Amino acid sequence: MRIALLTDFGTVDPYVAVMKGALASRTDAGIHDLTHEIPPFDVFAAAWFLATVAPWWPRTIFVCVVDPGVGTARKIVAMERGEERFLAPDNGLLSMIGGAWRAVSVENEALFLPHGSTTFHGRDRFAPVAAALANGTPLEELGPPMSAIVRLDYEPPTYGDAVVGGTIVSVDRFGNCITDLEAGRITFPRFALYAGGHVIKTLHPAYGEAGEGAFVITGSTGHLEISVANANAAMLLGLRRGDHVEVGEEG
Amino acid sequence: MRIALLTDFGTVDPYVAVMKGALASRTDAGIHDLTHEIPPFDVFAAAWFLATVAPWWPRTIFVCVVDPGVGTARKIVAMERGEERFLAPDNGLLSMIGGAWRAVSVENEALFLPHGSTTFHGRDRFAPVAAALANGTPLEELGPPMSAIVRLDYEPPTYGDAVVGGTIVSVDRFGNCITDLEAGRITFPRFALYAGGHVIKTLHPAYGEAGEGAFVITGSTGHLEISVANANAAMLLGLRRGDHVEVGEEG
Amino acid sequence: MRIALLTDFGTVDPYVAVMKGALASRTDAGIHDLTHEIPPFDVFAAAWFLATVAPWWPRTIFVCVVDPGVGTARKIVAMERGEERFLAPDNGLLSMIGGAWRAVSVENEALFLPHGSTTFHGRDRFAPVAAALANGTPLEELGPPMSAIVRLDYEPPTYGDAVVGGTIVSVDRFGNCITDLEAGRITFPRFALYAGGHVIKTLHPAYGEAGEGAFVITGSTGHLEISVANANAAMLLGLRRGDHVEVGEEG
Repeated sequence: MRIALLTDFGTVDPYVAVMKGALASRTDAGIHDLTHEIPPFDVFAAAWFLATVAPWWPRTIFVCVVDPGVGTARKIVAMERGEERFLAPDNGLLSMIGGAWRAVSVENEALFLPHGSTTFHGRDRFAPVAAALANGTPLEELGPPMSAIVRLDYEPPTYGDAVVGGTIVSVDRFGNCITDLEAGRITFPRFALYAGGHVIKTLHPAYGEAGEGAFVITGSTGHLEISVANANAAMLLGLRRGDHVEVGEEG
Repeated sequence: MRIALLTDFGTVDPYVAVMKGALASRTDAGIHDLTHEIPPFDVFAAAWFLATVAPWWPRTIFVCVVDPGVGTARKIVAMERGEERFLAPDNGLLSMIGGAWRAVSVENEALFLPHGSTTFHGRDRFAPVAAALANGTPLEELGPPMSAIVRLDYEPPTYGDAVVGGTIVSVDRFGNCITDLEAGRITFPRFALYAGGHVIKTLHPAYGEAGEGAFVITGSTGHLEISVANANAAMLLGLRRGDHVEVGEEG
Repeated sequence: MRIALLTDFGTVDPYVAVMKGALASRTDAGIHDLTHEIPPFDVFAAAWFLATVAPWWPRTIFVCVVDPGVGTARKIVAMERGEERFLAPDNGLLSMIGGAWRAVSVENEALFLPHGSTTFHGRDRFAPVAAALANGTPLEELGPPMSAIVRLDYEPPTYGDAVVGGTIVSVDRFGNCITDLEAGRITFPRFALYAGGHVIKTLHPAYGEAGEGAFVITGSTGHLEISVANANAAMLLGLRRGDHVEVGEEG
């Protein structure tokens, strides 16, 4: 097993370095950074990032700390799905992880650092528990089973016969607006996409084959994206994460 | 021994990548990033970061390059404390490292890269010397002993009977204002904290349990922090690193 | 062999984490980050970064993805030079790699991920091909030989008897303006440097030995840099990458 970290800590402050030290001094498992640049407190961004990345990291312990409720009564979830393990605050961060999983509430204080803080569970709880998992501790020893976890306030897309509705779930650094609409489920022979007052009828197979103006493309996860060739679509079109998009037959 | 890097190089420029290559081609020791995002030339930030992180990395060679005096007559310090080693320019960067240490001035040119530059000692001196330490070279071979090192211009807190005075030593990415006041040494049954014209009387045990407005919390290193729940305290209150804070009995 | 990554993906989006997962699940070779902060689509910055860093990483597979033409007919180059391997889109990114190299066009689809995207060749082509190289696949199996690669639109410096002309090829985070002029080829006993309407006659051996005002220094790669002590030369002088510089005998 290896350990992969996903936080909103940034790399300017000492938090990630402290957490990695707490890990590296407890386990020989490899420690990998997924990102530390989740916007502060943005649980949705973390959940979407994790769901996008997880399929590419087999046999991995994902340690996810975006945790505005740190120190409160919120639980910490340890989830097992096949050979993967996920550790996260129970705030919705794991709610985009599909498939057959089982989970426990991490409550075994013997695994936590003694005299821990109320402000930095990444160091005091997540790191030593992740190290224990990496060193072979079974899920059951972490705490009692959970039958449900907190879910995000998020409406999945609707695939109607005439109209398909979805959401921009991420705007990447290139300005591509990534929706949650699965390209494979859109069966109109020709379609138009509506977002933020814009109508986009152009589809392109690759960023670099586009001419001027916005176009729709099937992104690397199989979802529709709104792009502009060599430019920032989000800025040019005034689109943001959370914006509603609709797709209908062109007419 | 493993190697941990702390610089103000950022990751946009090639400096870190070059330094890591110079290390990786000279030693099999693991190379870890603590941060490369110390603000340019900010020796104080580097010293505070290092002091915060070092306790969590046992058996580590800390290579610290925030070095506005590179190429001048300033010395390079190699410090040994227990099983830790610290390499840094002698500009105050190591002056928050407590405990019983001994140090040498790194002057053995046989360990430096030949034909080195005056502008990039991270590559030409720090990297090969760190690799030598990792490969077992004893401290004595690096250069002559130093009995004192340069210290930062920094006033530690004063713990009076009626008033305690300290400094905001860091503002983190969440806007928490971290002071150098040790919570365990403040014995007023109820207290008020004064900073930047604000009076804060509210204490909270966890970020997430706070209501509106600023509050004081004991942070993860045991020092007082000024915070606002789910918001940026520094921006809301106009506080900055270096600002003076006072704590007195509430009355 | 180890793998070193150079991209314009940033670390906010999932692209780097996905690519590393695709690598780590296919090879045990160490995976190192050179940078992911190349400005989006900036092939020149990537080429210059790579040329600066490559000499410091022996026996390395450099995986370079700054790829505005992803999904179009542009080729992917795999280049071999001594014990180094370079993978990059054929868009000029490798055109500053000197020495005796041979290259192939990466076309062996059996090495690509099945059902790959047109938007993320870093994951679908670069990662599995790099893993194959790390695991011992010879260059010939990747595709047919290439006798030439795309070159950048870049004019190398001219070293005349009276005037030397060059370009600012990078502005680093400290504001140093790095030119492509090799200090060792400038033989005027005393010289003046002209850039952006400024005349700089002061040379300094080290950043820290400078007084006020701009000066010229020989940087860590042996090229002339324009600097201001403890300040941002580019901002103070209004200089940018791509600006022309001239050096002539002082008179």
